[in-house]
Amino acid sequence: MLPAPATIGMPIAEVDTPALLLDLDGFEHNLDTLARTLQGRDVKVRPHAKSHKCPAIARIQIERGAVGVCCQKVSEAEALVDGGVGNVMVSNEVVGASKLARLARLARRANIRVLADHPDNVDALQKAAEEAQVTLEVLVEVDVGAGRCGAQPGEPAAKLAAHIAGSPNLAFAGIHAYQGGAQHMRTPEERETAIRKALAMVEATVAALDRFGLKAETITGAGTGTYLLEAASGIYNEIQPGSYVFMDADYGRNLEADGKPVHTFRHSLFILATVMSRPSPGKAVVDVGLKAHSVDSGMPLVADVPGAKYLRASDEHGLVELPEGADVPLGTKIQLIPGHCDPTVNLYDWLVCHRNGVVEDIWPIAGRGAFY
Amino acid sequence: MLPAPATIGMPIAEVDTPALLLDLDGFEHNLDTLARTLQGRDVKVRPHAKSHKCPAIARIQIERGAVGVCCQKVSEAEALVDGGVGNVMVSNEVVGASKLARLARLARRANIRVLADHPDNVDALQKAAEEAQVTLEVLVEVDVGAGRCGAQPGEPAAKLAAHIAGSPNLAFAGIHAYQGGAQHMRTPEERETAIRKALAMVEATVAALDRFGLKAETITGAGTGTYLLEAASGIYNEIQPGSYVFMDADYGRNLEADGKPVHTFRHSLFILATVMSRPSPGKAVVDVGLKAHSVDSGMPLVADVPGAKYLRASDEHGLVELPEGADVPLGTKIQLIPGHCDPTVNLYDWLVCHRNGVVEDIWPIAGRGAFY
Repeated sequence: MLPAPATIGMPIAEVDTPALLLDLDGFEHNLDTLARTLQGRDVKVRPHAKSHKCPAIARIQIERGAVGVCCQKVSEAEALVDGGVGNVMVSNEVVGASKLARLARLARRANIRVLADHPDNVDALQKAAEEAQVTLEVLVEVDVGAGRCGAQPGEPAAKLAAHIAGSPNLAFAGIHAYQGGAQHMRTPEERETAIRKALAMVEATVAALDRFGLKAETITGAGTGTYLLEAASGIYNEIQPGSYVFMDADYGRNLEADGKPVHTFRHSLFILATVMSRPSPGKAVVDVGLKAHSVDSGMPLVADVPGAKYLRASDEHGLVELPEGADVPLGTKIQLIPGHCDPTVNLYDWLVCHRNGVVEDIWPIAGRGAFY
Repeated sequence: MLPAPATIGMPIAEVDTPALLLDLDGFEHNLDTLARTLQGRDVKVRPHAKSHKCPAIARIQIERGAVGVCCQKVSEAEALVDGGVGNVMVSNEVVGASKLARLARLARRANIRVLADHPDNVDALQKAAEEAQVTLEVLVEVDVGAGRCGAQPGEPAAKLAAHIAGSPNLAFAGIHAYQGGAQHMRTPEERETAIRKALAMVEATVAALDRFGLKAETITGAGTGTYLLEAASGIYNEIQPGSYVFMDADYGRNLEADGKPVHTFRHSLFILATVMSRPSPGKAVVDVGLKAHSVDSGMPLVADVPGAKYLRASDEHGLVELPEGADVPLGTKIQLIPGHCDPTVNLYDWLVCHRNGVVEDIWPIAGRGAFY
């Protein structure tokens, strides 16, 4: 683990680069906004920690009313529990004996949930839970349109739930119905249509469960792009937004009903970069390339040089086009809005938190690289 | 830093996933092949360690005749020197007082070189070297067509060299002329044309240096895609291939003169993945997504399931299309060839080295995340 690029009290202009900056005012605005937009809705909030991998943020989310957090990997759950988080759902299938043994052991010291979408995996979960002498809470993942993991809705999902309910060391805890494919659909109409279809699949599954004499106590899903729809559905009773704390460039391309970019949440996560070469008047090269941000959802945006554009990334460099007359000498520090926050955060060991440009806190990203 | 996913002597089928596997036979074949293809050429080899970030590999390259290695960042150089590598060129500009101070201090305990492309940076290098009481060897980076960093060839580059030569604590060590844009051009004709143009720019710079009474003792550049051209040029006397040790999927799309994919080097780097969901007969979901490989140069290839195709990646998942009748039950471990090795290696803490499927060694990727 590299040393932190900053010290508390330092102006951000002195922070070493590349660094991941969290604007605490924006971050707190986003926490407030989530709470405000959910007023009057009877849903639990279980934010997704795969976005931040940071126990400090998870603890703040729980202090503000979240029932716990989600994450995607056992090692991520371990990092969160070690960091003081007592309630974690691994919103993913866990396959392989050593991972399952670790998951079951973790359930001895925290409230742990996990998903399943295959009977063989249910049997393996039962074996691990029995060996660790715990009862594991298991939700059935249902494919509600994302086309990734998940049992088929209705009868197949209910059959798997019965398999879980019939396993002595497992408790059937509900349905996981996350429509990941809908989160980045650009118009509200597209997102509404996708979630309406997902709701029908959840209802079909609830009906099938009823025929098996089972009830899904938790019906959970949703992300930053659609959580208001699931929260208003009367069917979901738990939501899992993750990226709302940061708002990346790609989420910023989602539109609201007024046709404007989503304006509920603010960008709070930035990459601090240094201009390390000025090969020509219209070009700057920064020290932030493919090893300091993920380009799967496009290039980062330049936050603080009006008219500047991050054109392309190589391993350790970013080529930035500058508008005429931009005053960006060698050594200038500029801020970028990452294209996709989750895999970008995973490249950093530290989150440098500042308020009005002064470093206020430095949080370890304890789940960085935790992909086992 | 996460614990290693394997122990020595373990069959690779038992290695925890995601894991980065190095096939030692393929790796050694690649080391041998580089040496064989350079027989009779009067060039030094300074492999690029930005590809592997691994002191163990750098030491093997030096044992086999390399003069030292390249890397891109001061913290990477520190990790290499700490790992027993005595000769490192930071083949990049280093900007910022704290980074320069660290670079200069490193020159007290290892042979360190660095690049410059701007007079202000030369002055900052001089200041840092003076404060650390060292002499830093500085090469002028010349833009020979890549359009990234670098002084313009000819007079501008020579003027900068004179500035270096006139700085009491700096030594002008030569020209860095890397045509990065040519490495992944698909046909040999395209690569030859690009390097021919680069050579003309190097010659113009050598002529300009001569007018300043200066000589470039080292003329260095080249990557895995073009190194034979620079080695045969009679102008370059040092080459810097990096990816040849691993050969990623993207380099595999380069063609040779016979129109076939490049067949000199073998794929030696693989990502071990576990099948964690089988949502339908034709689909498998693996536990290797955007946090376990970089997709900037395309999706990884499936190495060991004929006809299978890695279709798309989300943060922690990869969707694989299976051919009819493929026998890939839940829990199967499959090997992927990363699209782009450099940013993929940067996601892992450990390199699991095996021979014929048995783990022989486990090397720390000491430069993982070293981007300061």
